[in-house]
Amino acid sequence: MMSYMMTDSESPLPLYAQVEAALAAQIADGTYPPGAQLPNEASLLATYGISRTTLQKTVQNLIARGLIEIRRGKGTFVAQPRLTQPLTELSGFVEDMRAHGRHPSARLIARRVQKASETVAARLSLAPGTAVVHIQRVRMADGTPLSFDETWLPQDIGEKIMEDDLEAEPIFTLLEEKYGVPLIEAEYRLEAILADQAVARALDIAPGSPIFLIERTSFGEGERPVDYEKLYYRGDQIQFVTRLARRKPSRR
Amino acid sequence: MMSYMMTDSESPLPLYAQVEAALAAQIADGTYPPGAQLPNEASLLATYGISRTTLQKTVQNLIARGLIEIRRGKGTFVAQPRLTQPLTELSGFVEDMRAHGRHPSARLIARRVQKASETVAARLSLAPGTAVVHIQRVRMADGTPLSFDETWLPQDIGEKIMEDDLEAEPIFTLLEEKYGVPLIEAEYRLEAILADQAVARALDIAPGSPIFLIERTSFGEGERPVDYEKLYYRGDQIQFVTRLARRKPSRR
Repeated sequence: MMSYMMTDSESPLPLYAQVEAALAAQIADGTYPPGAQLPNEASLLATYGISRTTLQKTVQNLIARGLIEIRRGKGTFVAQPRLTQPLTELSGFVEDMRAHGRHPSARLIARRVQKASETVAARLSLAPGTAVVHIQRVRMADGTPLSFDETWLPQDIGEKIMEDDLEAEPIFTLLEEKYGVPLIEAEYRLEAILADQAVARALDIAPGSPIFLIERTSFGEGERPVDYEKLYYRGDQIQFVTRLARRKPSRR
Repeated sequence: MMSYMMTDSESPLPLYAQVEAALAAQIADGTYPPGAQLPNEASLLATYGISRTTLQKTVQNLIARGLIEIRRGKGTFVAQPRLTQPLTELSGFVEDMRAHGRHPSARLIARRVQKASETVAARLSLAPGTAVVHIQRVRMADGTPLSFDETWLPQDIGEKIMEDDLEAEPIFTLLEEKYGVPLIEAEYRLEAILADQAVARALDIAPGSPIFLIERTSFGEGERPVDYEKLYYRGDQIQFVTRLARRKPSRR
């Protein structure tokens, strides 16, 4: 489409934004499908007649939007579109990935008994310093690290679960089916943060990459908190979707 | 608390993580309340007996976690805790801020008629290229930029709303109360991204800062999409909270 190939000196948009819009449109319309390599820098400079500084700004913005990614030493590629994850019921990673037709797997990083920090204790309704079980895993979809999960469990439940094969068996399944701890509901706290060193290393991404952090406290019978998690999802890999109704118009 | 002041050579945690945990605990327990200035670098180096490189890693991680912020030329300060925004019903910015006891305000950046892009057209159930109204505002809470909002409206509704005082009147209120367009429900798509140049400028933050992006399509009667928005929230200022029930155990 030639119209995408030209910049417009009459346009109110700055040049980098025009080129950004043109490339984003070509990604959206499938000219460059997911996984495709973009033309190299020299070729893009010639196509759009812009400066290298302008192109770099364009590329930075497309990376920030999650549309493209740089693979070191290989070039610039169109990113895979994000997984669209419903945020409508309490579900575990393995259930979610199977619903997407993705193969879930897990790598166990650590499992240990530790003393509950202020936050962990508050979430699990325990006194600070109480022994809890802390489990760290990387969760993968079709082999790609998608989420770094930290789980804290009360000691009574956690010490049993520590002995299970945590690379093969989801904690939700162990709780519900092996140990008879039903899950009733969960509180989700959602934040956008940057990957720190530890999270970046676990997910094999650069520090400072965008992270969708979910703090989730799951409750069993009698509102007992039975599982507190921090789920660090790669921001470029997932979006969450829900539908909310308008409150009936009384007085807002 | 002296126990926070020492690092432990027996600990399995690397030094920077021990200091990070100690400072995070002191922020959590109110030793350093929101807005407080942290001790200067020389003082922290002496307290913890660590290298400058280790301290820098610690500080970077605490910034990434949103616990502290650097104010240029002034020092390092404990960040304000995030606003906790329920994600349970369709509500507008002004309603949300009033519920928090914050004073909402808005700065209008642009309003114009434009041709719908592929995405905007799809969200509003229009043909690409159809004229739509595009409104850009910065939304503030107690004077602090919290969200950069882009709104697209179908032309018939949008051309009326363009003429209103968009720094004083919420679009939801205009739709519902002035123009008789009831809002029934909305689809929310949530992503974690990095601020690009334009978003960073609007929110007065550094490019590359974490952004909580909400794409929201609001529907009126008969499932007609009447309002499509991209809401770029400052990741360090807000968290969203919801509660989800476990699906009844049939077969997962």
